[in-house]
Amino acid sequence: MKRSLQIQKILLDQVHIPVKLLTSFQTLGLDEKDVMLLLQIQQFQHKGIDFPTPAELSSHLTIDEEQCSRILRKLIQKGLLEIEQNTEQNTEKIGEVYSLNKLWEVLYGEKKEEKVVEQADG
Amino acid sequence: MKRSLQIQKILLDQVHIPVKLLTSFQTLGLDEKDVMLLLQIQQFQHKGIDFPTPAELSSHLTIDEEQCSRILRKLIQKGLLEIEQNTEQNTEKIGEVYSLNKLWEVLYGEKKEEKVVEQADG
Amino acid sequence: MKRSLQIQKILLDQVHIPVKLLTSFQTLGLDEKDVMLLLQIQQFQHKGIDFPTPAELSSHLTIDEEQCSRILRKLIQKGLLEIEQNTEQNTEKIGEVYSLNKLWEVLYGEKKEEKVVEQADG
Amino acid sequence: MKRSLQIQKILLDQVHIPVKLLTSFQTLGLDEKDVMLLLQIQQFQHKGIDFPTPAELSSHLTIDEEQCSRILRKLIQKGLLEIEQNTEQNTEKIGEVYSLNKLWEVLYGEKKEEKVVEQADG
Repeated sequence: MKRSLQIQKILLDQVHIPVKLLTSFQTLGLDEKDVMLLLQIQQFQHKGIDFPTPAELSSHLTIDEEQCSRILRKLIQKGLLEIEQNTEQNTEKIGEVYSLNKLWEVLYGEKKEEKVVEQADG
Repeated sequence: MKRSLQIQKILLDQVHIPVKLLTSFQTLGLDEKDVMLLLQIQQFQHKGIDFPTPAELSSHLTIDEEQCSRILRKLIQKGLLEIEQNTEQNTEKIGEVYSLNKLWEVLYGEKKEEKVVEQADG
Repeated sequence: MKRSLQIQKILLDQVHIPVKLLTSFQTLGLDEKDVMLLLQIQQFQHKGIDFPTPAELSSHLTIDEEQCSRILRKLIQKGLLEIEQNTEQNTEKIGEVYSLNKLWEVLYGEKKEEKVVEQADG
Repeated sequence: MKRSLQIQKILLDQVHIPVKLLTSFQTLGLDEKDVMLLLQIQQFQHKGIDFPTPAELSSHLTIDEEQCSRILRKLIQKGLLEIEQNTEQNTEKIGEVYSLNKLWEVLYGEKKEEKVVEQADG
């Protein structure tokens, strides 16, 4: 009986990752550690922590807090990670939240389409 | 910017459902309402509510509390739904939990394999 | 060993469903059969079939082909389901594809935001 | 309309990863590159390639084919990755398949529970 409980437990303990992040990160100039840090952000947000600290992020990685901060800065400079104001109406929480949307947009081509349009206009 | 936030919001607000539940429920003698009730259980457990009441389940369905109870009994009688004691070591919670494991086992063939083994032993 | 293979098999055989579809379908005037038909579309698209026929959809449901067509028409009239031209550049396939985007937009609030913007412009 | 199509496209292009792999890989003596290689296996199997070659795996990573082979050997020696015979009845494919089940069992505690039982018996 215990064994079978595991299946449901594993099923409920998953995070989704857009496949293109796993297959195209190199084209964005990222390496494995950068991606693993992004996956940590995704995983923290999945459990309701919208703005994990470098210390929290590094707690699951082989890299230390300082190196986490460096990667976070790199991702922000590349425009793949953004810090937004959390303005959820139905929560009391006010604060900052990491947004991965630019990343998904770049990976799934919205960005490029915009560029093409711009060039067509110019 | 708000638009883009939606992508991440949707990505983080998903529940996984084994495909075979959607494609084989009829072979188990279930109909659409039965499956939707099972999906409600999955969805409640996904957000940490292990033993939703019939009232909670019916709140997202077109069927009322009493009909929910009837379907729950049917699923339990069919052996697809079980009530187990929650004995998580790392939580203080003691109580009951719906287990969908028999359902996954039946759908993904473990049950049959066990039967075959039993017959071989017998 | 066979038992353990099941875990990976189940993990790889899942479809994601935005939670709000399960919790808010009634507010859109939908019932359990409508949602189950939408989930069938999601499930078919997940395995690469972008435009399942009413016959294909009904094959996994308790309702017949004709009733599937009726629900499809209802969903299209409600603006929750759209038929778009598939114009994937990297595939040879030309044809129609069901788009569930309006549904996700309605459920996750983009629609309302656009309305607000329109009002602000007007 | 193109923009909205993206949402459905992203929703259908995801791979699930058990959260514990992201949060506990260090306790198994793994680093970020090891995990990213495991995620590549998961991602290939998700699209039906059960036994990706080191060349295929390295194509999405910053590490080369030879280094992939070294990591694969390490994971097999650690007992986290297994090669099994694919004996799917409903396919013509005969061949090898990477099994990640030991990994999930170790991460989700089945292994340990079995050990406890063994000790209790002894």
